[in-house]
Amino acid sequence: MKKHQGIGPFKSEKKRRRDWRLDDKSVGARFLEMRYNEYENSIMEEEKNDSDPSADGSDHPTSQEDQEAISTAGKVIKCRVFSEFLGLYLCAAVAWEAGKPLVIEEVEVAPPQADEVRLKILFTSLCHTDVCFWKAKEQTPLFPRIFGHEAGGIVESIGKGVTEIQAGDHVLAVPYGECKNCRHCKSEESNLCDLLRFNTDRGVMLNDGQTWFSKNGKPIYNFVGTSTLSEYTVVHAGCVAKCNTEAPLDTVCILGCSICTGLGAVINVAKPPQGSSVAIFGLGTVGLAAAEGARIAGAARIIGIDSSPSGFEEAKKFGLIEFLNPNDYDRPVHEVIAEMTNGGVDRSVECTGSIQAMMSAFECVHDGWGVAVLAAVPNKDDIFKAHPVNFLKGRIVKGCFFGQYKPWTHLPALVDLYMNKKLKLDKYISQSVPLMEVNKALDHVVQGNSLKCIIRFAE
Amino acid sequence: MKKHQGIGPFKSEKKRRRDWRLDDKSVGARFLEMRYNEYENSIMEEEKNDSDPSADGSDHPTSQEDQEAISTAGKVIKCRVFSEFLGLYLCAAVAWEAGKPLVIEEVEVAPPQADEVRLKILFTSLCHTDVCFWKAKEQTPLFPRIFGHEAGGIVESIGKGVTEIQAGDHVLAVPYGECKNCRHCKSEESNLCDLLRFNTDRGVMLNDGQTWFSKNGKPIYNFVGTSTLSEYTVVHAGCVAKCNTEAPLDTVCILGCSICTGLGAVINVAKPPQGSSVAIFGLGTVGLAAAEGARIAGAARIIGIDSSPSGFEEAKKFGLIEFLNPNDYDRPVHEVIAEMTNGGVDRSVECTGSIQAMMSAFECVHDGWGVAVLAAVPNKDDIFKAHPVNFLKGRIVKGCFFGQYKPWTHLPALVDLYMNKKLKLDKYISQSVPLMEVNKALDHVVQGNSLKCIIRFAE
Repeated sequence: MKKHQGIGPFKSEKKRRRDWRLDDKSVGARFLEMRYNEYENSIMEEEKNDSDPSADGSDHPTSQEDQEAISTAGKVIKCRVFSEFLGLYLCAAVAWEAGKPLVIEEVEVAPPQADEVRLKILFTSLCHTDVCFWKAKEQTPLFPRIFGHEAGGIVESIGKGVTEIQAGDHVLAVPYGECKNCRHCKSEESNLCDLLRFNTDRGVMLNDGQTWFSKNGKPIYNFVGTSTLSEYTVVHAGCVAKCNTEAPLDTVCILGCSICTGLGAVINVAKPPQGSSVAIFGLGTVGLAAAEGARIAGAARIIGIDSSPSGFEEAKKFGLIEFLNPNDYDRPVHEVIAEMTNGGVDRSVECTGSIQAMMSAFECVHDGWGVAVLAAVPNKDDIFKAHPVNFLKGRIVKGCFFGQYKPWTHLPALVDLYMNKKLKLDKYISQSVPLMEVNKALDHVVQGNSLKCIIRFAE
Repeated sequence: MKKHQGIGPFKSEKKRRRDWRLDDKSVGARFLEMRYNEYENSIMEEEKNDSDPSADGSDHPTSQEDQEAISTAGKVIKCRVFSEFLGLYLCAAVAWEAGKPLVIEEVEVAPPQADEVRLKILFTSLCHTDVCFWKAKEQTPLFPRIFGHEAGGIVESIGKGVTEIQAGDHVLAVPYGECKNCRHCKSEESNLCDLLRFNTDRGVMLNDGQTWFSKNGKPIYNFVGTSTLSEYTVVHAGCVAKCNTEAPLDTVCILGCSICTGLGAVINVAKPPQGSSVAIFGLGTVGLAAAEGARIAGAARIIGIDSSPSGFEEAKKFGLIEFLNPNDYDRPVHEVIAEMTNGGVDRSVECTGSIQAMMSAFECVHDGWGVAVLAAVPNKDDIFKAHPVNFLKGRIVKGCFFGQYKPWTHLPALVDLYMNKKLKLDKYISQSVPLMEVNKALDHVVQGNSLKCIIRFAE
């Protein structure tokens, strides 16, 4: 049996990650199937005890650890290839009903169709948007469904017409795509690809309108075209970003959604001038990434607004200097901000998705030049209200998805920035759990005691 | 008696305009008073018959015409200087009650205080904003009041501390000021001077909170710091723009508000790229100036939206190519525009002040890069509503007053553009009436059968 290749160290828990034998970039789909069959056979033979592979603190996997990991994974996931072209029986976290715990089970994953790629997911990071649609209280319910939309993995096979990606490539899976042909892809101002834009309601493949996941013939819907809470998934080739093979996927996987959403909302959209003041509404991952963006842009005052002051100390790591808890005041928070800043901040970024915060973010910017940027997804029935004279007074409201980054074009450079230690990502990772504990990860996000919780498929 | 100096031809009616003896730039306030006293004496002696000075079609005033004009003006206006420092008894159109005809009568005008200048108004152009506040249906009523806020005139005297303007200067009076010291004046992004911004509710002088107009001791409020429907008025020195003395004030006076509002909303704020599509809501003066701005910027499709199609033919002069009457459709106009333009226009400019049009202007822009600019003043209780996800989809809403022009800094260059025939202004002037017929001018605006109606103080 071939040795597993190291993907990169997992910094927060000093665990090792390993590529499940997709290290050979030139390997084709048929060869992969053969190797999966080999692997399936191997786990039928192996019966090792489960132990914590991080216990010895070593950064290099040993043969013993490999076997333990395979054994653990094998027992639960029972991965086996069903067919290269018809589908694979695989392990995924399925949401059968809104708000009910996810169930780990085998699902069938169809092979990639034209312009699609099938990925072996190694790490997925949970995001608030997953939780919103899992709860489905303010959003369209679509179940059963497999969530997950920021992930790092390796290309298992490619569909017809895919030319720029090949099996074995290290990639990030991203819910915002880039077809490279539409007016948006050709515009420098937009990342809202006509074909592959963030779509929470579709749940099926673009090619044939069918689901690529099923369980005993029952279709399982996808989420935003990624569904990375599955060991294997199919995504459009435009929804991946190629990634430096040296980059640790357990860390850079968080660039797939929330970090870019906050960082880009400031750097690409709000564009605070050097020495300016910036208010950040919401100090979750998106908000902290926005604060970091403001710091990178040279903002002099970065004010965080959050009704959970427990995170204020932690938030200082991200460039935040001042904090406001709206509950501490008996007047609207935008008035407090205007008083603190001689009329308003130069820029504000809304990172909570609350309509009230969106309106406050608009009201708290300085007239004449203030720009409010909405970066978090609102509820579907929300209405933004403002007195129109506030627009005439020179306040601007903008917004963006995914920080206006185009995944294929811009993400490789962000990964390189991380590799060059110019972009800090490790500090966002607060927990890491194996797939089996995905509901614990969900709880972390629901309870708000998590920045990024990584779900590990490879152990 | 000294000959009157020609100010410039009034193109639309081929009448002559004359400066009321303020041609000598070096003349001081004391000398001016002496000359006014001379003039007052002269009109006591002269009793000439009134006749149409344009009848002979001559562009140069004759002695006979001068005498007729003086005679007419003298009989009605009864201008006479009361005191250089205490006030002048003057002729003005006073609005005593909301919506009631203006009354031409003598008013007392206080001399300029520190940083103020007193102007002799030669031409005022009526604007929709005057009419809105005269009707006072949706705005704060403040009466008695003297309206008028876009005008051309000559500096009669200056207050303490005024250094950059002197008596005799040709100027435009503008309701948007520039103190040159505040953060807005120092910013390239804003024209919303902290001290001198457009203020419809104040009605009194900045220096002492008193009115500068009165009638038999009863105060008369000003309007937006200008009140140019008076032969003499006092404005802050920051609310005038110096003007090439060769420029015909009866034409360039229209740069004081609505033309700049539309032109600048496009050129300075919407900034449509070459070849782009622009929708203009409302084809009054502001809208037509916006269309001209779009044409100058190189827009390829300029679509006018107005529920009065009678102006569509005239609007072609201003660069408009396509027209939409919302009443012709049984679905929202933004949907019609989106269909016409493959998803929406690149830019839209709202020039009506209607909240419904403002929201349509936002909805009709293309996602990814569309910018809606609100240029017309809304009613005070209006609420702009939008689904916040439309901001996240890359639509931007902005606004501006006075097209983001700074009067002192930018207007002289616009006057020069007119003089160099690069900016066409004559086509906006649809009527011209003497002050005595100011209610006719008001009717023109109320009935919507006027672009710019000039009110002539000098005849």
